[in-house]
Amino acid sequence: MDWISSIEIAAERIRTHVRSTPVVTASVPGVDVPVTFKLEQVQHTGSFKARGAFNTLLSGAVPEAGLVAASGGNHGAAVAYAAQKLGHRARIFVPKMAGPAKIALIERSGAELTVVPGEYANALAQARAVEVSSGAMQVHAYDAPATVAGQGTCMVEWEDQGLDADTVLIAVGGGGLIAGAMAWLAGRRRIVAVEPETSCALHAALAAGRPVDVEVSGVAANALGARRIGEICFDLALDQDVQSVLVSDGAITESQRWLWQALRQLVEPAGATALAALISGAYRPAPGERVAVLLCGGNVAPDPLG
Amino acid sequence: MDWISSIEIAAERIRTHVRSTPVVTASVPGVDVPVTFKLEQVQHTGSFKARGAFNTLLSGAVPEAGLVAASGGNHGAAVAYAAQKLGHRARIFVPKMAGPAKIALIERSGAELTVVPGEYANALAQARAVEVSSGAMQVHAYDAPATVAGQGTCMVEWEDQGLDADTVLIAVGGGGLIAGAMAWLAGRRRIVAVEPETSCALHAALAAGRPVDVEVSGVAANALGARRIGEICFDLALDQDVQSVLVSDGAITESQRWLWQALRQLVEPAGATALAALISGAYRPAPGERVAVLLCGGNVAPDPLG
Repeated sequence: MDWISSIEIAAERIRTHVRSTPVVTASVPGVDVPVTFKLEQVQHTGSFKARGAFNTLLSGAVPEAGLVAASGGNHGAAVAYAAQKLGHRARIFVPKMAGPAKIALIERSGAELTVVPGEYANALAQARAVEVSSGAMQVHAYDAPATVAGQGTCMVEWEDQGLDADTVLIAVGGGGLIAGAMAWLAGRRRIVAVEPETSCALHAALAAGRPVDVEVSGVAANALGARRIGEICFDLALDQDVQSVLVSDGAITESQRWLWQALRQLVEPAGATALAALISGAYRPAPGERVAVLLCGGNVAPDPLG
Repeated sequence: MDWISSIEIAAERIRTHVRSTPVVTASVPGVDVPVTFKLEQVQHTGSFKARGAFNTLLSGAVPEAGLVAASGGNHGAAVAYAAQKLGHRARIFVPKMAGPAKIALIERSGAELTVVPGEYANALAQARAVEVSSGAMQVHAYDAPATVAGQGTCMVEWEDQGLDADTVLIAVGGGGLIAGAMAWLAGRRRIVAVEPETSCALHAALAAGRPVDVEVSGVAANALGARRIGEICFDLALDQDVQSVLVSDGAITESQRWLWQALRQLVEPAGATALAALISGAYRPAPGERVAVLLCGGNVAPDPLG
């Protein structure tokens, strides 16, 4: 697969539909060089997921039956938003653990929403059943080339904004965002994959030598709680020998608080997970190493103005 | 006064002490051209006030008795932060209406904090008494040349970031931020001064032909509730024939909600006041007019992670 070309095409295809998200540099405790942050939670619907959703919907013909997607919340909100903007019907399945803030976000988009008991995998099973019975197009949350190429545009944009970093820290759920970054960077910068200790599908897969099922729980589970890492992500991570680190829920919560107190950026736990690797020391940059942190989601619960 | 030179010197003087704050462009309902936002609430201590505080403290010798400041909260937090960074003693007086989030922010800085009953003017009276009795240096919140020149650096930075706008909307309390912008832009772009209907010292002064006392109340009063507009601001506004508009508390709250829902930026009411002029139609851009909105403060209460 020619990822560079796919991602360049995706960037051009979605350019008028997504937001160029801002970047800011700040000192982080324990890191000797100022850290660069990309505020990707400023993206439409509050996460990077709008990139993959628009790229998928614009990559080919959408059937009359419309779209179907399963999601921990953020992907569903992005597909619902993109469908509304492009005039398609959308049916979204989310697990109850998505929480009220993300459920309300999807409801506001006008999509047909079904809340499924249990975790993400249960929502995915229902979405697949509807795909088969209705002929609707499934928009996969992370393990499809169009999704990965769309998420890869985030890194294209960051480099266009003058990213000055040796190392980029990225949170991993199913692996769509980091796969896009690995595909685009192709080893030009170090990528560190950060997962919660209690939702670590990539870490487990790298240990096992193949994608395996993991149990998922913890504060970031509704965004990062994929039971199994995507094949695309796994293959790229293995090929590039990407460094995988784990962080505790406590470190994630502490990072959320730091982002609010130091930068007035209120993000969901998944959005603070990459930073947690620095705050906790799970990843310790070498002296002089220039580090960048991707903030990927802002759909915090409860709604702070609710 | 040579404002351009003062502001250029200020920008160089405070460069290593303040953050270059991010900008983002987004569509706003009812405005036909995408609007550019500067996220100045990402500044240290959550508002632009750090600029004026550092410029003041670095402009001359600080006496052994240290610093004293009166504030609705944001200026006090900025002076406390700058004093801590530069190794000075600071005594801060805030009215009770500053609220728990801002009071906690100042307490974390290690400054000596006194909470005064009533409004900002009462805190100012106590700060002046301490200035006289102790020999401490008063850092005025808005009506001093070093403060105004420091706040003016926000607009220098925005132009360096490629600001593409005919018109800049800025919220007004005592007028330090907008005075800095007027002093720097010197008529090169249109400036619209936005005040709450219930805290409108500039609007009242322009109507009366001179600064006059006003009553202050409403959701943004702890940041914008100056009883009288600064002389520096008033003179510049009169000279430049700046357009003054008023917004309701309802429009401010609606703009706060829009900033969260559309941009995942959680700001205090004062931080949403400039946008409220667009959301409410108090300022209606001409077709094709390129508008920029300065978000100036993010110290919302209650603390969303508290």
